[in-house]
Amino acid sequence: MYRTILLIRCPDQPGIIARYATLLYELGGNILGADQYTTDAKNGRFYMRIEFSHAGGAEQRAAIAEALGPLTESLGGITQLHGMETPMRMGIAVSKYDHCLLDLLYRVKKRELAVDVPFVVSNHGDLRDAVEGQGIPFHYLPVEAGRKQEQEAQLVALISGSTDFLVLARYMQVLSEDFLRAYGRDVINIHHSFLPSFQGANPYRQAYERGVKIIGATAHYATGELDEGPIIEQSVERVSIRDDVASLQSKGRHLEQMALARAVAAHIEHRVIRLERRTIVFE
Amino acid sequence: MYRTILLIRCPDQPGIIARYATLLYELGGNILGADQYTTDAKNGRFYMRIEFSHAGGAEQRAAIAEALGPLTESLGGITQLHGMETPMRMGIAVSKYDHCLLDLLYRVKKRELAVDVPFVVSNHGDLRDAVEGQGIPFHYLPVEAGRKQEQEAQLVALISGSTDFLVLARYMQVLSEDFLRAYGRDVINIHHSFLPSFQGANPYRQAYERGVKIIGATAHYATGELDEGPIIEQSVERVSIRDDVASLQSKGRHLEQMALARAVAAHIEHRVIRLERRTIVFE
Amino acid sequence: MYRTILLIRCPDQPGIIARYATLLYELGGNILGADQYTTDAKNGRFYMRIEFSHAGGAEQRAAIAEALGPLTESLGGITQLHGMETPMRMGIAVSKYDHCLLDLLYRVKKRELAVDVPFVVSNHGDLRDAVEGQGIPFHYLPVEAGRKQEQEAQLVALISGSTDFLVLARYMQVLSEDFLRAYGRDVINIHHSFLPSFQGANPYRQAYERGVKIIGATAHYATGELDEGPIIEQSVERVSIRDDVASLQSKGRHLEQMALARAVAAHIEHRVIRLERRTIVFE
Amino acid sequence: MYRTILLIRCPDQPGIIARYATLLYELGGNILGADQYTTDAKNGRFYMRIEFSHAGGAEQRAAIAEALGPLTESLGGITQLHGMETPMRMGIAVSKYDHCLLDLLYRVKKRELAVDVPFVVSNHGDLRDAVEGQGIPFHYLPVEAGRKQEQEAQLVALISGSTDFLVLARYMQVLSEDFLRAYGRDVINIHHSFLPSFQGANPYRQAYERGVKIIGATAHYATGELDEGPIIEQSVERVSIRDDVASLQSKGRHLEQMALARAVAAHIEHRVIRLERRTIVFE
Repeated sequence: MYRTILLIRCPDQPGIIARYATLLYELGGNILGADQYTTDAKNGRFYMRIEFSHAGGAEQRAAIAEALGPLTESLGGITQLHGMETPMRMGIAVSKYDHCLLDLLYRVKKRELAVDVPFVVSNHGDLRDAVEGQGIPFHYLPVEAGRKQEQEAQLVALISGSTDFLVLARYMQVLSEDFLRAYGRDVINIHHSFLPSFQGANPYRQAYERGVKIIGATAHYATGELDEGPIIEQSVERVSIRDDVASLQSKGRHLEQMALARAVAAHIEHRVIRLERRTIVFE
Repeated sequence: MYRTILLIRCPDQPGIIARYATLLYELGGNILGADQYTTDAKNGRFYMRIEFSHAGGAEQRAAIAEALGPLTESLGGITQLHGMETPMRMGIAVSKYDHCLLDLLYRVKKRELAVDVPFVVSNHGDLRDAVEGQGIPFHYLPVEAGRKQEQEAQLVALISGSTDFLVLARYMQVLSEDFLRAYGRDVINIHHSFLPSFQGANPYRQAYERGVKIIGATAHYATGELDEGPIIEQSVERVSIRDDVASLQSKGRHLEQMALARAVAAHIEHRVIRLERRTIVFE
Repeated sequence: MYRTILLIRCPDQPGIIARYATLLYELGGNILGADQYTTDAKNGRFYMRIEFSHAGGAEQRAAIAEALGPLTESLGGITQLHGMETPMRMGIAVSKYDHCLLDLLYRVKKRELAVDVPFVVSNHGDLRDAVEGQGIPFHYLPVEAGRKQEQEAQLVALISGSTDFLVLARYMQVLSEDFLRAYGRDVINIHHSFLPSFQGANPYRQAYERGVKIIGATAHYATGELDEGPIIEQSVERVSIRDDVASLQSKGRHLEQMALARAVAAHIEHRVIRLERRTIVFE
Repeated sequence: MYRTILLIRCPDQPGIIARYATLLYELGGNILGADQYTTDAKNGRFYMRIEFSHAGGAEQRAAIAEALGPLTESLGGITQLHGMETPMRMGIAVSKYDHCLLDLLYRVKKRELAVDVPFVVSNHGDLRDAVEGQGIPFHYLPVEAGRKQEQEAQLVALISGSTDFLVLARYMQVLSEDFLRAYGRDVINIHHSFLPSFQGANPYRQAYERGVKIIGATAHYATGELDEGPIIEQSVERVSIRDDVASLQSKGRHLEQMALARAVAAHIEHRVIRLERRTIVFE
């Protein structure tokens, strides 16, 4: 059996589920789960994610896509179909910290995250051995003074045809809006604070100075505005005066791993809907 | 608009959602949410909860119930329809501890729990003022030595016609299987441990002696077997050597309130499916 | 036996614990616990909280205070002694929301919080019955247009001699710096967000619009700068798209109750050290 | 500066802290932190952990040990001194699951866990490459049918002189009481349930069948009684009907890693006191 995700967005109106469910049933799809969200009770927008199985593969999926067309059009909406038998291709960019990288690679190896990792790219050479030791190609794209634009162009060239989305697993460079536009696909970043608190540099120092009792990490889609992109997932943990720098770093590492891994899982299962500045995450 | 919950249980098979969704749509229902659970991929049993709105009230609901009959029969299943405009009637039984009682009554007053509380019953008189002060009748049914059966008979007589379910909010008497059979409706109990650890009496002492690092509370349906009924909800919290008896009791009170309130919320929204020894809870 | 808290702050140097412990021992005190914190390994400031029991009451405490004087002076520090047999007097200010108020009063009644509550004051009359029903005086001090300064003066007059600290249990007025100076004692506020995120009005709306996945509440000392005072305690909880306004409010109420109650507990046990913009909380 | 942990256990009595603190001060020790625990207010046993720094190394430590002797004897107690400059030697035994092993080795590499790992031993050969790839010797000691006793003897021979404690990082063999006696040092095990719930085999299946809403993992000292040893640390996480086998395994892996890493951290910092069937853990 093949597994496919159908995403629907349209103006809210009665009968949406009935129509799609009926059409899928007639076309040989067996619904495994359905989630929906409406922005407002009145004149809201309607979002639905339907997971279904079907015996025919890509061919049947194409037929379903075609058959859904008129219905979607009549509802004034948009649909997407994502076949789950082909893993998404996840590019990973890192700098020197390895904890998010290694955690992602471990989950990929265990197929907890069903993605392919075509390569890891870095502006530093430090993690080459760790990456290549797992049989994954490593690309070193240093950022030379005054030549950041050039490096971003190389990065775009590298990832454009070969990845479906890019994860910044503690990549310590701010990507320009031009880069994001040129790449044109989703970029997931991990920020080591509980956003919107402590944007920008040195969030741990900011948190320490403000005396917060709980620290966090935030995975979000990168946008042109630093640390302002739609939040996908957040993790938090209590801190106390018994925490020293080492234990705070350890807690922080763990929070970043958790938030990023969950965000990637939600993304590749097509459970995240971007709504301007925020996201809806179906659980 | 009226809000109704449709519960469906039947052997798993393709097209269930499509059929119910279509029928509801044709009958004027607008689906607000749908959750489903299948016990096994092969030959499993299928459970679904559909929440829908409709303009007509009880009359339309009766028409829907009738119209669903043949479909349900053809699927070899069972359906229930619960109108949400009529609050369920929740009986409360207590002994001397007031924390769960007061928490429930507060949530009822705030309509966070949409139930009616026709009365509170107790085997002690201590909480009479607290209950009557909120304008709720209080019934005192003491358990005299050797006359427990008699007291249970009085309790059944009191609650049978007047409640839809009974909550044991730290009621310190074990109810017999005869009582449960005579009442014939759901009884929710709160146990002050993380079941199945520490069944029976004095769970806090048991937990202390075993040296667990996390304590809990468990809300479950009462059955004839003490502390063995299907678990609805659990709460946990860390403890440390800095906890003294007072802080443990405080944490325990809070855990009991949380687990019980969430269990009642799930129960009255018909999100709990009993499956022999366990439950499925739609979230 | 009497229980006393000794707070010490002085420049860090060797032998501090040894000296105080020895002096207390010689004076008949039995140390029950000791916590310490140093701001920096080099040239840091040292903070210590020692809890000890002793057979003599206030008289012995006064003798200890006198005996500690020369030692403290020689260390260039400051000490405070707090006898625990006299409950602190906690003033409570509220507006219309009752959940923090009722939670505090319940914990006071159970002696989970060992304080006296001489009265509750409000700028609205709504909660009079709830307060007086528990045998606690209620003062109504409305804030009339353009006469806020006058109301604050009345408030200072009311609480100055009669309270040791003031809790703003969802008191929806910003207190002026003049008020804080005139009162001269600690004021604890509860803010319904995970500060420093979402300062100011309508934090829930701000949180919703930013799409955070975890909400929080923050108890802090009030200062002249709105929502900028030293944080004492924070509580957080996950939210999801399944949360509607009612469930968010319920979660928020609970988070506020927890953070405020824990902050008050830490405050009255003298476990909180104010350090400019932040606090140290001994656990 | 050298860092040393002093552990004291003796009958509770006044002046213990004062005496040790004074003696340490006179001997050139600077106390960095002190934690204490008393089993009962009356006639209890007293446990204290003092962390102090000192300029002289092992020599000064030996002098301190000698100087503490008469004081400890006069109190009827026992003391231990642990220098922190020499990492403890942690043996690791595994079978086929690698998640706890890899997590421990990562934390060791980052010096989050300050231990030496002389080798990893396994009853299977599967993890040889993963271990040797990190430059750590791997010993393969298979358990052949009817020859378990022999294998345990080999294991004792291997670890006895070369390790200070042994971690069973998902080692799927029950160690006999004879083994534990022969080794004579602490053995830390990770059990994949929230003990005492679900002892023995297949705890996840047991948990599933009982329908618990929260799963856990427990790190404990191994004793002759299976899954009955003193608990050091526990981790828990909510589960829901949305969890499938893969997500449960992922949550379980994570819980085991967390509980085991925290238990090892507490153990090597000498924060765990064994008290018959339970432990006191200073935080």
